[in-house]
Amino acid sequence: MRILTGIQASGKPHLGNILGAIMPAVSLSRKPENESFLFIADLHTLTSLKDGDAIRSNTLAIAAAWLAFDFDTDRNFFYRQSKLAPYHTELMWYLNCFTPFPMLANAHSFKDKSSKLADVNAGLFTYPVLQAADILLYDAEIIPVGKDQRQHIEMTRDIANSVNNLTNKEIFVLPKAQINEDVMTIPGIDGQKMSKSLNNYIDIFLPEKDLLKQIKKIVTDTTALEEPKNPEEDITFKLYQLVATPTQTQEMRNRYLAGGYGYGHAKQDLFDALIQYFKEAREKFDYYQANPKIIEEKLAIGEEKVKPIAEKTIARIRDVFKF
Amino acid sequence: MRILTGIQASGKPHLGNILGAIMPAVSLSRKPENESFLFIADLHTLTSLKDGDAIRSNTLAIAAAWLAFDFDTDRNFFYRQSKLAPYHTELMWYLNCFTPFPMLANAHSFKDKSSKLADVNAGLFTYPVLQAADILLYDAEIIPVGKDQRQHIEMTRDIANSVNNLTNKEIFVLPKAQINEDVMTIPGIDGQKMSKSLNNYIDIFLPEKDLLKQIKKIVTDTTALEEPKNPEEDITFKLYQLVATPTQTQEMRNRYLAGGYGYGHAKQDLFDALIQYFKEAREKFDYYQANPKIIEEKLAIGEEKVKPIAEKTIARIRDVFKF
Repeated sequence: MRILTGIQASGKPHLGNILGAIMPAVSLSRKPENESFLFIADLHTLTSLKDGDAIRSNTLAIAAAWLAFDFDTDRNFFYRQSKLAPYHTELMWYLNCFTPFPMLANAHSFKDKSSKLADVNAGLFTYPVLQAADILLYDAEIIPVGKDQRQHIEMTRDIANSVNNLTNKEIFVLPKAQINEDVMTIPGIDGQKMSKSLNNYIDIFLPEKDLLKQIKKIVTDTTALEEPKNPEEDITFKLYQLVATPTQTQEMRNRYLAGGYGYGHAKQDLFDALIQYFKEAREKFDYYQANPKIIEEKLAIGEEKVKPIAEKTIARIRDVFKF
Repeated sequence: MRILTGIQASGKPHLGNILGAIMPAVSLSRKPENESFLFIADLHTLTSLKDGDAIRSNTLAIAAAWLAFDFDTDRNFFYRQSKLAPYHTELMWYLNCFTPFPMLANAHSFKDKSSKLADVNAGLFTYPVLQAADILLYDAEIIPVGKDQRQHIEMTRDIANSVNNLTNKEIFVLPKAQINEDVMTIPGIDGQKMSKSLNNYIDIFLPEKDLLKQIKKIVTDTTALEEPKNPEEDITFKLYQLVATPTQTQEMRNRYLAGGYGYGHAKQDLFDALIQYFKEAREKFDYYQANPKIIEEKLAIGEEKVKPIAEKTIARIRDVFKF
């Protein structure tokens, strides 16, 4: 199956992204029946961030992270959306003309974002149409998304259907959303879902000293060191079990319940477990960050590989209008 | 000055277009200080028309009309928007991200159209942003428009200003609307402004018999043949004076006032005057319509000529985002 995933370039990847998105996607891309289209959605990023230097450094960090987790760029497709901008945006225009205005005006994500943001621009409003173009351009079949994105994939299907129905031809492949219901929500240091916008994230690619500093900021209750503690309601424990072995997790649980084990100890153990779990990824990440040219080369190869696919789709839709 | 004009491909050019737009634009393009960018806005057309065959035949008829009125394609720039689609749409996306949503939602033309049309799509909504891209892509300085389009040129300036201000560089040239206040409104056969959508137009490129049939449908009052008539309130007279010489016009006025001159006579005289006035244009139009390859060649040359200009603008804006 052809699986497509886009990643915003609005920040650097944190533990939540890695455990919740990058690692599952890399696993999926390894299955012999799959081929993965993985792209950095830097055109989308412009709806919220216009700083070229920030976009560039985020792009390199994101690409380094995927490479650090061994995303196989030979077997799959790895590219920056901006390098294929003419294809994505041309298709977007055609799709715009098949997208009912009320469909966009009533989209949950627009209503939600437009009520929170100061800069509500036309890019933000039409973003689901660019997303539809991202998907349809490469005949993607499976789009792994969170529940909040389900509506956007439905829109993509509706728009694609309108074009197919007009022409009585299969101009576009209809994609399916793959919603992983039991995807783990990674708690941030304040207990809410880890996210860049809440500034509650842990960046596992930081130097050890800075990483430890972040971990020490994890919110705890005020139970004294000697008292027994409830592991199930503690953020440090929740994070620990995501990266520790079952045996280690059981041991930490016992320590919490026994008392005499403070949150400071638990945080140090979490730090050690993170360093252990991500040892190889941290080394690879540092290597790629130090060698942006290697990243650029890999992306450039991917961009050449997807181009003929994009060209074919554009040719099909241009033909509809005799362009 | 660099003057830019886009023409919708949603219909074939009628007398109103010719007298109100094509002929004045051709005059303007002949002034030594000007260079004219004239394009068939077939991407815009998709907001209302999706029939490729209709778009193609409209495009050829429009191009034939401009050539019939001696638009100098060597000295100026003559192209189909769709052939430069990647540039127009890529720039449009960037501009989308600088266009406040309320600016589009409050645009007069959207409010007006969306209340009348059944198909209110995202293309129609974001159409002013594509128009901004059409203008800014070629560093156009002067945009001759009707009053109803003034707001769109203001939007273009606002969007361009946002980008220039962000970067502290002149990424875009700020265009000016040129509103011809005393532009003549050409009445249709029912007395309302001649327009395709009202189906009240006269197609001067029709075979003589069909043209005469259209003219005979001009609405008149019921004054009897022998009675004096008021020329100033008669549609046939209004049309006649647009294409007749001042002497001819004075003669017809006298006949109206004298009586004994019926509307049937006036319509025959209008027909003769149209045939006389547009003799050369009708021949040239037929020639180009019979030779679409010549039209295509001229357009293809124009499309190659504008490409480097579009490329430069895209390079400037990509550089802002380090793409």
